[in-house]
Parts: sequence; C-alpha cells; structure tokens
Amino acid sequence: MKYDFGIVGLGVMGRNLLLNVADNGFSAIGLDLDPLKAAALEKEGSEGKTVKGTTSAEEFISSLRTPRALMLLVPAGKPVDVVIASLLPLLEKGDIVIDGGNSYFQDTDRRVASLESEGIHFFGMGISGGEKGARFGPSMMPGGNRQAYERLRPVFEAVAAKVNGEPCVEFLGNGSAGNYVKMVHNGIEYGIMQLIAETYDLMKRGIGLNDDELQRIFQEWNQTELQSYLIEITGEILKKNDDTTGTRLVNLISDRARSKGTGKWTSQNAMDLQVPIPTIDMAVLMRDMSKYKEERVQAAELLNVSASSNGLEAEKKAIVDQLRNTFYFAMLVTYAQGLVQLRVASEEYTYGLQLQEVAKIWRGGCIIRAACLEEIRQAYEKAPNLPNLLLDPQVAEELLKRQSDVRTIVKLAVDKGIPMPAMMSTLSYFDAYRSEVLPTNLIQAQRDYFGAHTYERVDQEGVFHTEW
Amino acid sequence: MKYDFGIVGLGVMGRNLLLNVADNGFSAIGLDLDPLKAAALEKEGSEGKTVKGTTSAEEFISSLRTPRALMLLVPAGKPVDVVIASLLPLLEKGDIVIDGGNSYFQDTDRRVASLESEGIHFFGMGISGGEKGARFGPSMMPGGNRQAYERLRPVFEAVAAKVNGEPCVEFLGNGSAGNYVKMVHNGIEYGIMQLIAETYDLMKRGIGLNDDELQRIFQEWNQTELQSYLIEITGEILKKNDDTTGTRLVNLISDRARSKGTGKWTSQNAMDLQVPIPTIDMAVLMRDMSKYKEERVQAAELLNVSASSNGLEAEKKAIVDQLRNTFYFAMLVTYAQGLVQLRVASEEYTYGLQLQEVAKIWRGGCIIRAACLEEIRQAYEKAPNLPNLLLDPQVAEELLKRQSDVRTIVKLAVDKGIPMPAMMSTLSYFDAYRSEVLPTNLIQAQRDYFGAHTYERVDQEGVFHTEW
Repeated sequence: MKYDFGIVGLGVMGRNLLLNVADNGFSAIGLDLDPLKAAALEKEGSEGKTVKGTTSAEEFISSLRTPRALMLLVPAGKPVDVVIASLLPLLEKGDIVIDGGNSYFQDTDRRVASLESEGIHFFGMGISGGEKGARFGPSMMPGGNRQAYERLRPVFEAVAAKVNGEPCVEFLGNGSAGNYVKMVHNGIEYGIMQLIAETYDLMKRGIGLNDDELQRIFQEWNQTELQSYLIEITGEILKKNDDTTGTRLVNLISDRARSKGTGKWTSQNAMDLQVPIPTIDMAVLMRDMSKYKEERVQAAELLNVSASSNGLEAEKKAIVDQLRNTFYFAMLVTYAQGLVQLRVASEEYTYGLQLQEVAKIWRGGCIIRAACLEEIRQAYEKAPNLPNLLLDPQVAEELLKRQSDVRTIVKLAVDKGIPMPAMMSTLSYFDAYRSEVLPTNLIQAQRDYFGAHTYERVDQEGVFHTEW
Repeated sequence: MKYDFGIVGLGVMGRNLLLNVADNGFSAIGLDLDPLKAAALEKEGSEGKTVKGTTSAEEFISSLRTPRALMLLVPAGKPVDVVIASLLPLLEKGDIVIDGGNSYFQDTDRRVASLESEGIHFFGMGISGGEKGARFGPSMMPGGNRQAYERLRPVFEAVAAKVNGEPCVEFLGNGSAGNYVKMVHNGIEYGIMQLIAETYDLMKRGIGLNDDELQRIFQEWNQTELQSYLIEITGEILKKNDDTTGTRLVNLISDRARSKGTGKWTSQNAMDLQVPIPTIDMAVLMRDMSKYKEERVQAAELLNVSASSNGLEAEKKAIVDQLRNTFYFAMLVTYAQGLVQLRVASEEYTYGLQLQEVAKIWRGGCIIRAACLEEIRQAYEKAPNLPNLLLDPQVAEELLKRQSDVRTIVKLAVDKGIPMPAMMSTLSYFDAYRSEVLPTNLIQAQRDYFGAHTYERVDQEGVFHTEW
C-alpha cells in the first residue's frame, strides 16, 4: 500500500489537515515521534478512510507514493531544519517537501536552495483558517516550483475551502512566495483586528454602549458590506458568558495582548521595501503598548482620562452608522496597503505573484476572508498591474462616499480621548496618498542644510547642494 | 614627534574633526589614501597647530603616542572592516580604535568582541552636528570600555560642544551603547523633522499662510519653548531665495525625500524590543510615501483633495498659537518615545545607560538639540529609573496644558484633509498610554477563538482557553 500524501507533525493542525486529506479520498500517512499522537490519528480516521500513523521515519517515507509529497507541520525555526535533516537521507530526487508552518520567508529561500541541489523540491506554504480551517477547508498559499506543484494540485484543491466552487488555493509564485503572502495576510489580520478593537473601544468607552448593544451591532454588521470572519467572530465573542461568574467573558480577559511575530515581520520588511503600511504598523505597536499595563495604570491617574459622556440615543444611532462606514473604509485601505507590499515584494524577490489570485484565495477559509475581497479581486482582474487599490475607480468611489464619516468619527475619538491609532493612520494614509505635493521638500532642505545630503529640484534635472 | 590623536578618513567630517582636535591643543595626524586630502589637511591646519596628513598606514600608526587613540571616519559597513583589517597588524595591546560613523550597533558588537580578543579596545561613537558640528563642537556618543575611555576623555571633552560649560560628551555604556544611542537620536530627528513638515503643511495648504508668514512664524517660535536647532534652521531655510529664479528655494525642491537607514533601524529595532515609537515610525513611513510621486499625482486627481480654505486673520493667529503648543506637546512625546527605547535597549543589551547623561549630551552640538532637553535631563536626574517621561509630573503638566490645543489642531487637519500621521500618532500614543484599560482584551479573545492561542484573565491567575 502506497499513500498519496504524508504529514509530519501530528499536532492539532497536522492531524486535522491529514483527516481533511483523507476525507477527500486521498490516502494519507502521518509521522510523529509521539506514539500517542500517531495512534490517536488512526482511531479518528477509521471510518472507511485510508489513514495511518507511524513513529518511524523509514516506514513513513517508504510508504509514500513517488514522487513523494509530504508536508511538515512543526513549529517554525529550528524544528523545520531538524526534521528536514532527519528525512533527507531517505528522500529521492523529485520528492516534494512542503513546510506548512509560519516560517520566515528568508528561511524558506535558504531551504529551497539547499534542497534544490539535492533534487528535492521544497515548498513554503502558508495555511490560514485555524484548527477548523485545517479540518474542513483552509486557505492555502503555496510557493515553490511551478512544475512540481502539479503533483500537489489535486490534493490541495480538494482540501481547500471553496468559494463559488473555486478552491482557496493556487500556486502563487517562486521560492518563498507562499510564506511571504501568508506573512502579509497575517499583517492585514493584525490591522483589521486592531481596527475592530478601536471601533469597539469608541462605542464602549466613548459613547457608552452596553454589552448587549455592542454584540448586536457586530452581529448586524456582519450582514452588511462588512461581512467577514473577524466581524462575525467578534459578534460571537461578545455574546459569550463566563461559566462561573455569569458575566460577559470578554470583560474578564486581560488587555495584555500577545503576538507571535508575523505582524512584526510584515512591518519590518515593509520598511526594508519602503512600502508604507501604517495601519499594520499601528496594530503591531498597540499590542506592544498593551503590555505596559502598570505604567498605563499610573498614567491614567496622572494624565486623567476624560470621562466618557453618553449622548442621546438618536446620536448614538448616527454614530454607529458612521462607524460602520468608517470601518469599511479602513478595511479596504488595510487590504490596499498589504497588497501594495505584495506587489513590491514580488518585484524585489521575483516571486511572479498575481494579486488577483491572492485576493481570490483569501475570499474563503482564512482569517481575513471578507465579502469585499471579491470586489478587490475584480479590481486586479481588470487591471493586473494596478499600483494601489486606491487607484481603482470602484474602490475610490467606495472610499469617497465614506470619507466624511471617517473624518467625523476620528474627530469624535480625538474629542473623547479614545486612542484610534490604526484608524487615524489609515485616514492619514488616504490623505497623504492623494496629496500631489507633500511637505517633504522641507525635509530634503533640512537634510541638505545640516548634512549636505543634496536635493533634487522640480524645475531642473540634477542633484543640488546649497550653502544655506 | 608622537601625536596625541589620529583620524582615518579625511572627508569633510574627518578633516573638520581633526582640525577641531588640533584647535584644542592636541597634536593630530590624519590618514587618507588620497594624497590630495592628506596634503589639504596640512595646509588648513598650518597656523601654529600640530597637524599632519599621511597616506602611509605605517607612518600613521608609528607616529601615534601609545596607547594609541585613533578614530575611523569612513562609510559604515564594509569599509570599516576593511580599514580595521589593514591596521590591525600594526596595532599593539591597549590601543583604542573608535568608529565615528553611523555603524549598525550589531556590527559594532561583533567588532568589539573580535578586537577584544586581540587586546584592542573598540569604541562605537555616534557623532551628531554635521560638518559645522565636527569643526566647532559636535555632540559625541561614545560606548565601549569604561577604563579605556579615560585615554579619550581629555580629547573628547575638549572638542565637544559645551552647554553651560558642560561638554556634550560622556561615556555612555558598554559595547555598542554609543551607536545605539546615536541610532535613536536619529530616529528622534526623523520624528521631529516630520512633525515640522506636517506643521508647515497645515499652515501652508490648510490655512493658506504665505512664505513670508511661514518664515516669520518659525523664526518667532525659535524664541519660545520650541527653541531648537531644527526649528531654527527651518526659519533659515524658509528665508532663502533661489539665485536664478528669485523665488523661495524650498518651493523648488522635490518632495521625494531620501533617508540613509538609521530611522528605519530605530523603528525595526523598537519592534523587536516591543517598544511603541509611533511618531518615529510615521516619520520613516512618510519618507517612503513621498517616493510614490507618480501615484500620488494620479490619486490627487481621482480622490480629489479638498481645496484649502482661507479663514479670517484672527482665526489664523489663533491656529498658529495652537500649532505652537501642539508642536511642543509632540516634541516632548517624541523624546519620551526615544528615551523609553533607550531604557529598554539598555536592559536588553546590558549597556548600563544613564538617561540623564544622554539628555545632557543632547542639549548641544547635535541635530536634535533643544531647550526642552534641559527639562528632560532634570526629570531623569530626579528619577533615574523613570519608565517614561510622560510619568514625570512636570512633563505631565506641560502636556495636559496643551492637550486641548492638540485636539483642536488634529481635528482641523482631519477637516482640511491634510495628512498629519506623526502628529496624530503622537496624540494616539498619549491617549493609549493614559488608558488604564485598552480594548486589546478583544484581540486576545479573537486570537483564542480562531487559533486557540489562550488568554489571561483579570480575576484569576493562569492561562485559559475557551471553546467559543
């Protein structure tokens, strides 16, 4: 018996993905050093599916149909290299190793190069959708060798989430393209989550809406143009009561937020590529800010926060409607920023990305899936080389329709003293991007003044220096 | 004849610094491979000063008094390693090599370790003040070996800028402490320059002030609490006419801003350390944004910028006064962010920084020198372990006095469609820092919902996961 597909690492993600593969009619074998995990797999997969678990690397590799296709679902970093080193002596030319974790894209490039020299195809593939996604249909972002992808295509297209019958997986590009796209996916995820948090904060602290009202608003918003996974689960979260105290669980959760680094990587690499992604930067930063809890408690005392005032019911209703428009505006601009980063990265790293494909596979399965991704996909279908989503006439119209509400909301937050750094920087991005002339001529003059760094002129070619 | 001090690299900075050393009664020798530069030095330094230029590394090293003190003023990166490798065979145990360029701090750590094993002390020293500062008194930020510093102290204290008779140089800490402090200095410089550019933009595009008015305002502001080098030179820059056209030169300078990387390094490393420095991040980002000129021209068309409206003269006067207060608020908060980064970095990299000393040596000579640095120095003198300048009662009072003007100005910019990302993110920083509770509990709930990332609670110890 030769298995179609193998998975190394039978944690929650690995086990769920393997069962998903088996559900779709492919035989699958899993390798884990932990015999309990290997055994548990066989039990779960026993109803007529062809599933096997093993603790033996030799058995695992020799049981796979050649050219072999095996996916690693082990923690990013050193574990990936350790597993590769241990399996490499058993592999043959033409075999395909897929790293399904959140590896740093430059690590993937290194691994692609080193395995290529052994005749092994290495793929970096971002997978989004969490545990449930892995089990019932994730969004998958593979990058690597285009020809070798054909061996993987049937399996991946079967297990991926579907939108209008189209699978949420597509070969994205060369080398580390898959990891890079997943990294930016996560950056956008950070951005949207922070925008939701700010929106929630303004409604709660700013205009005094109660838990029931907040929950209902997010639930309703998910029936509008805001329809998206993150808005949906926010509604679910705000509904949940704590088992012991009976109060809303969300209010008992500490406000120290954690992060695993992919948002930070997105921001740091965007700076290397000189691509502005302020909404994502502010989202990364606010998770850091949340950790300074003791200082914030002191500062709240010293720099007395203005009390939230409650307006009239009619006013609140109007504000909530403006907030919905503001959120949609910010959501579109956040996708725009991330997609520009992908466009520039694709040039820099010769990935050959098609942004239309990226938008397509993000429509389902992944954490940032949202109804608006179909509109975004269409924009890139019409104009594959669109420099920025803001230059698409449809998107521009959506933004222009809402900008006055965005300004109203930002001013309200400023008056209330509610921090909305992601929302404000989104508006700044919009205002800066549509500024034909920015005041950065003054910065160039200053640099030339103190450091003789020279400047260019608008009326003549060349490089100039002035004795100021 | 043995020389007190040597400089390698006789570009503008190296030559000026060497002449400054000689002016202060120390004999100095310069090494440059270019015979013209070596000869030019001797000509400039001929009036009774002991100055020599050479193109011979052997002559240079053998002419220095032991233990030797020699400073490299060559471009950061590979050239520093090349020069070190070429001089190393000529050096003796106990000699001191100082890198006076903007080297990346981790490169300095590597060099300190490698030279330490040869018995050579390596110093990384940031120097700020541009060409004039080098010639007549810069601010100098040395880090390295505390004992070895005593050999350098007399020279450095003589050549540094003075404020109230105190030299703007002090041993800052171990290893790469000097480069790190200079990196953050430059980050703050980016922040303040961007704040000035935004302020200028709001006055020009937003309320229609003309060039004469703008120039007068910056000149006047330099007589107030805003007194600082960057405000001063902005006034000078706005005064300057172009020789050929007779119009203001600043208006002829291209708005594509350049950068040399130290601001980006500051932002990227702050993210590694999880220190929020939004004002600096936005400043780095807006230089990137300025490069997208063609797109901005298209976007200005499509996303029609609202025309600037001109108010009454009395209104304008009030706005300018509010802007002055806003700028001071933002300036203080920018220093606060940079100093927090230094505090955290000093722990992380065991630099042993004293923030009071840092503020002290920034008061003169450097690009970010400003009257308010004396107030900042006093805050750290009173409380050396102050976690954040915003928690100093005096600074808190200064901020609270001005916050309502900041809010008025930000709202004006929002109405006018003038991008003020650095100013807005400064206000967001203030509002977030003084928020005892941030809405990041919702983010933790979302992370647990989709990724089983767990959360902490406010009412119980431990780590929790919910089946949402």
